[in-house]
Amino acid sequence: MKSHTSAGPDSAVSANPNGRVPSHKVYVAVEHRDLGGRVTELRVPARRIHLAGEPGVLDVYDTSGPQGFDPRVGLPKLRADWVKRRLERGDTNLSQMHYARRGVVTEEMVFAAAREGVDPEFVRSEIAAGRAILPANVHHPELEPMVIGRNFLVKINANIGNSAVSSSIDDEVEKLRWSVRWGADTIMDLSTGRDIHETREWILRNSPVPVGTVPIYQCLEKVKGKIEDLSIELFLETLEEQAKQGVDYFTIHAGVRLAHVPLTAKRLTGIVSRGGSILAKWCLAHHKENFLYTHFEEICALRKRYDVSFSLGDGLRPGSIHDANDAAQFAELDTLGELTEVAWKHDVQVMIEGPGHVPMHLIKENVDRQMAVCKEAPFYTLGPLTTDIAPGYDHITSAIGAAMIGWFGTAMLCYVTPKEHLGLPDKEDVKQGVIAYKIAAHAADLAKGHRGAQARDDALSRARFEFRWEDQFDLGLDPETARAYHDETLPADGAKTAHFCSMCGPQFCSMRITEDVRKFAAEKGIEDQEAVAAGLREKSEQFRAVGGELYVPVRSPESHG
Amino acid sequence: MKSHTSAGPDSAVSANPNGRVPSHKVYVAVEHRDLGGRVTELRVPARRIHLAGEPGVLDVYDTSGPQGFDPRVGLPKLRADWVKRRLERGDTNLSQMHYARRGVVTEEMVFAAAREGVDPEFVRSEIAAGRAILPANVHHPELEPMVIGRNFLVKINANIGNSAVSSSIDDEVEKLRWSVRWGADTIMDLSTGRDIHETREWILRNSPVPVGTVPIYQCLEKVKGKIEDLSIELFLETLEEQAKQGVDYFTIHAGVRLAHVPLTAKRLTGIVSRGGSILAKWCLAHHKENFLYTHFEEICALRKRYDVSFSLGDGLRPGSIHDANDAAQFAELDTLGELTEVAWKHDVQVMIEGPGHVPMHLIKENVDRQMAVCKEAPFYTLGPLTTDIAPGYDHITSAIGAAMIGWFGTAMLCYVTPKEHLGLPDKEDVKQGVIAYKIAAHAADLAKGHRGAQARDDALSRARFEFRWEDQFDLGLDPETARAYHDETLPADGAKTAHFCSMCGPQFCSMRITEDVRKFAAEKGIEDQEAVAAGLREKSEQFRAVGGELYVPVRSPESHG
Repeated sequence: MKSHTSAGPDSAVSANPNGRVPSHKVYVAVEHRDLGGRVTELRVPARRIHLAGEPGVLDVYDTSGPQGFDPRVGLPKLRADWVKRRLERGDTNLSQMHYARRGVVTEEMVFAAAREGVDPEFVRSEIAAGRAILPANVHHPELEPMVIGRNFLVKINANIGNSAVSSSIDDEVEKLRWSVRWGADTIMDLSTGRDIHETREWILRNSPVPVGTVPIYQCLEKVKGKIEDLSIELFLETLEEQAKQGVDYFTIHAGVRLAHVPLTAKRLTGIVSRGGSILAKWCLAHHKENFLYTHFEEICALRKRYDVSFSLGDGLRPGSIHDANDAAQFAELDTLGELTEVAWKHDVQVMIEGPGHVPMHLIKENVDRQMAVCKEAPFYTLGPLTTDIAPGYDHITSAIGAAMIGWFGTAMLCYVTPKEHLGLPDKEDVKQGVIAYKIAAHAADLAKGHRGAQARDDALSRARFEFRWEDQFDLGLDPETARAYHDETLPADGAKTAHFCSMCGPQFCSMRITEDVRKFAAEKGIEDQEAVAAGLREKSEQFRAVGGELYVPVRSPESHG
Repeated sequence: MKSHTSAGPDSAVSANPNGRVPSHKVYVAVEHRDLGGRVTELRVPARRIHLAGEPGVLDVYDTSGPQGFDPRVGLPKLRADWVKRRLERGDTNLSQMHYARRGVVTEEMVFAAAREGVDPEFVRSEIAAGRAILPANVHHPELEPMVIGRNFLVKINANIGNSAVSSSIDDEVEKLRWSVRWGADTIMDLSTGRDIHETREWILRNSPVPVGTVPIYQCLEKVKGKIEDLSIELFLETLEEQAKQGVDYFTIHAGVRLAHVPLTAKRLTGIVSRGGSILAKWCLAHHKENFLYTHFEEICALRKRYDVSFSLGDGLRPGSIHDANDAAQFAELDTLGELTEVAWKHDVQVMIEGPGHVPMHLIKENVDRQMAVCKEAPFYTLGPLTTDIAPGYDHITSAIGAAMIGWFGTAMLCYVTPKEHLGLPDKEDVKQGVIAYKIAAHAADLAKGHRGAQARDDALSRARFEFRWEDQFDLGLDPETARAYHDETLPADGAKTAHFCSMCGPQFCSMRITEDVRKFAAEKGIEDQEAVAAGLREKSEQFRAVGGELYVPVRSPESHG
C-alpha cells in the first residue's frame, strides 16, 4: 500500500505555534479487483500525526471528508462509477448484504476494511452474517464507506437538523462539517421545520459520512401534524422520496405494537421517543396495529432497491432510571428481533436502536438480550444516561453508560449533548457531545482489546513522559483546548519543552533511571532484576556524587499521591 | 426527629427567577446519650428542595457547611465539647476506631449516621471492622463528621492548594468554599509553595469537611528540596506540627519499598506520583529501605493521639493505560495490606489509595485485589482514567472509570479536573471536576442499589415528565447551568411551564393516558391489562371525538428515535 498526501487542507487540526504542521490528511492507495477482473485504485483517507519522538508518525481514522469544496457544489462523487457498473449489470437488490451473501467483496467493503486495518473478506463475512452493516445508499455517491459492527471500531453518531424554533440550512451544513471534523462517524438529520426536503439535500451532497433520518417526521409535516391521517401509502411515498435523495439509513418504529402501549401505563415517564409516541398514538386513535409492522415486507422491498439500511427504532425506550429494562422496552425488543429476520430474508441491512436511561448494573442485560433476540445484529444505543440528576451535564452522565455498553458489544453510540432535555444544541454543544463520545468509544475499543487501539494512548503517554508537549497536544482529541489550558498556567513557549525537566533535573528523573537500567542490562547481558539492583547501587553513588538534585514532577491534581 | 431551618443563607443554590426560594438548609435535631448518660442535641445539616409537585420536599446530603462566617474568624467549633469531655476522661487513644472497637458510639458516629440515614450502631460496627473510617482530628472542631466506607454513600475528594507558580491564601479558602458548595465530601491541601503552614491553618479553620495532606511535601520544603536529607525525625516532627493544626488524614507513601523501584524500570511512564517518586529517590540515594516503612509503628503511635487517619498512598500507581495493573503497582498494594494490619493493631483508621490510569476491563481487578489484600479497608481512587488520549477532558475520561470503580466498591473518588496533565485548576475547573465526580458517585450509588439514592432521580424525572421546569432545574446538580441552557432556546418565563404542554395538547399526552388508564382500573377494580385494553378503546373514540390533536414532545437530541 503506497500513500501520498492530499491536496486539500486538513481541517481536523490547526498548525501548532512552533510552525510545524502537526498533522495532515493522507490518502492510502488500495487496489481492488472486481468480478470482471477490473482493477480500481481506491484512495482511503487517514490523518497522519507527525511526532518529534517515537513512533515518528501515527495514522488515525479520519471522518472529516474532502476539504475545501463549495457547499453549493457538494463533495466529489467517489462511488459514482462503482454504483454505475452495478446498475449496468442490471442488479436489482443493491444491498451490501446481498452482495456479501453471494460472496462478492464490493469496493465499499475494501474501502471500509482499509480504514479499519482488516482484511476485506472479514468485512464481507461480518455483513453476510448480519453482525455488521455498511450503510451506503446508491444515491449517496459522496459517501466515504465505513462499517458498523461490534468486531470493528466502535462508532459514534451526531444528531443535527433544524426545527421550527431553530436554524437555517447553512447552519445545518456547518454543523455537519463541524461534527465530522471532531469525529462523528454518521449523522442523523432530525429536521422537522420548513424546508425539510431541501435541508436534507444540502446535508447529503456535503456529507462524507452515512446520513440517517426518521421519515415519520416528514410524513407528519405532510399531514400537518394530524397523526390519525398517517397511512402506509404516505409513508412509502416519503421513503421513496428520501431514498432517491440518498439517505443511508431510516429509523422505523415498527416495533411499537398496539399491545405494547398499555405496558407503558405504569411508567414514571411514559413514552419519551418522539417517533414512538407518534405511532403509539396512531395505534390508539384507530385501535389498530402499527402500519409499519403490518406492512414491513413492502418497506423491505423498497429499501433493497436503494440499499437503505434499517435502524429499527426503540420507540418504547426508558426515559428515566425508574423505567429502565421494563416490560414495555423488552416487549418491543422481541418484536425488533422478529423484524430483523424478515429484513434479512430480503438481504436488507439492519441495526437495532437501544436506550436511553439505564443505571450501570442494568446495562449489560440490554446488550445480552439484544444479541440473543436480534441474532447479533449491530446494536446502536443512545448513551445510556446512568443517572437523571444532572441536566446540563448529560454528555457526561451518558458517556459513562456509552463507554460501558460499547465495551459490552454495542457497535455505535448516539451522542448526547450538554443541552439534552433542556434545548437545541448549538455548535459548541455538538463539539462537546462528539468529544465525550469519542472518549467513550475509544475507552470501549481499549477494553475490548481492539487491535491497534492502544497505539494512540501509548504514543501520547510516551510524549507526556518525555515532556514532548506539542506531541502530547497533537495526539489528543482536541489539540487546541489542551494547548490553551497549558498556556493558562505556563504561557512561555519554552515551557512547552523545558518546564518539567527544569523541575526534574537532568541528573535524575525516573525516565533517565529507566533508560540507564535498560542500557546497563543490555551491556552486561544479565537479568533485568539483577541489572536493576546493580544499576541502583551505581545510581545511588552517582546520585550522591552529583549532589542529589531534586526530582519532583510538576504538581497536578493527580499528585494526591 | 424535629427539624428547623437555619439562620444562615444557603449558598448551595440561588433563588430561582419566579421568586420562590427553591431550596434552603435545614438542621435536623438528633439526640445523643453518651456513656455518662449525658444527652446532647446534634444539629445535622441537609439541603431541603421545595417542589411544586410530588414529593413536595426532598432533603439531600449537604456538604456546604455553616454559611456567612468571616474567614478570619473561621467556622463554629461544633465538636469542641465532645472532644473536651474525652480529654477530661483522660483518653489517650482518641481514634474513632478505638472507641468503635470498645462498643462506644461517639457523637461523630451519630452525626454521620443521621446524614446517611442509617442506625448509629451500624456506623460504629463498620468502623470497628475497618470497613469504614470517620476522619476527624480532635484539633479540627469545625468539622461536620462524615463516614467513608463502601456500605455508605460514595464520597468524592477535591484537591486544592497553592504552589510556587500559583495562588494566594484567600484564593485557597475561596476554592475550599467553592468545592464544598458543589459537593466535595473531603478536600486535600496539596500546597507546596511558601506559607504552607499558614495556608493550611486558614483552610482548616474554614473547612466543614475533613482535610487531608501529603506531609512529605512540607518536609521537602524544610530540607530545601534535598531529598537525601529527609529523615524520620524531620518527618515525625512535621506530622506532629500538622496533626496539632487539625489535619484529618495524611497520605503516607510507606508502601514504596526499595525492592519495588526496579519493577518500574520497564514502564512506559515510570513513577508518576510525586510522593512516590520522592521516596523512591530517597531509597536509591541511600540504597536503604523507605524510612516510612521501617518506622511505621512510631507513625501509628503519633496518629492515635490526635485521631489522624491514614491514607496509604499508591506511590507506584500506573500513569498510563500501558502500565495499568502491573507488577510494581500490585507489589506496593501487598505492602499496603501488611501496613493496614499494623495500623489496626493501634486502632488507627486506614484507607487505601488506588489508581490512576486503568482501561475498563482491568478496573474490577483493582477493587477485588484491594479488598482481599487490605482486608476491606476503604478504597480511595484517583479516577481511574479509562484512556490517555483526551488531555483537556480528563474529568470525563476519569468519570467513566470513577463511576465503575465506585460501583465495584470504592468508598471515595478523588476528582480529576479538565486541567489534569496540563496545568493548575482554577475555580471553574474545580467546579467541573466536582460535578463530574458527583455524577460518578451518584451513578455508583444507584448501581449499588444504595437505599434512597434513586429518590432524587425519580423526583427529577417526574418533574421532567410533568413539565415542572423549575423543579427539574432545582433537583439537578447545577440548577443555574440547567436554567441558563433552557433560556438559550426558550427565554420566555412562560416557556418554563407551558412549552411542552402547548405542543402536547391537553386532550392527549402520554402522561394523561397513563393517569386515565390507572383511574379506569381503580374504578372498575379490574386487572390493569384489561383496564388498559378497555381504556384504550375508550381513548380512541374520545380521541377521534376531540379531533385527535397532536402529541409530540419537543424534539431533543434524545429523539434519534
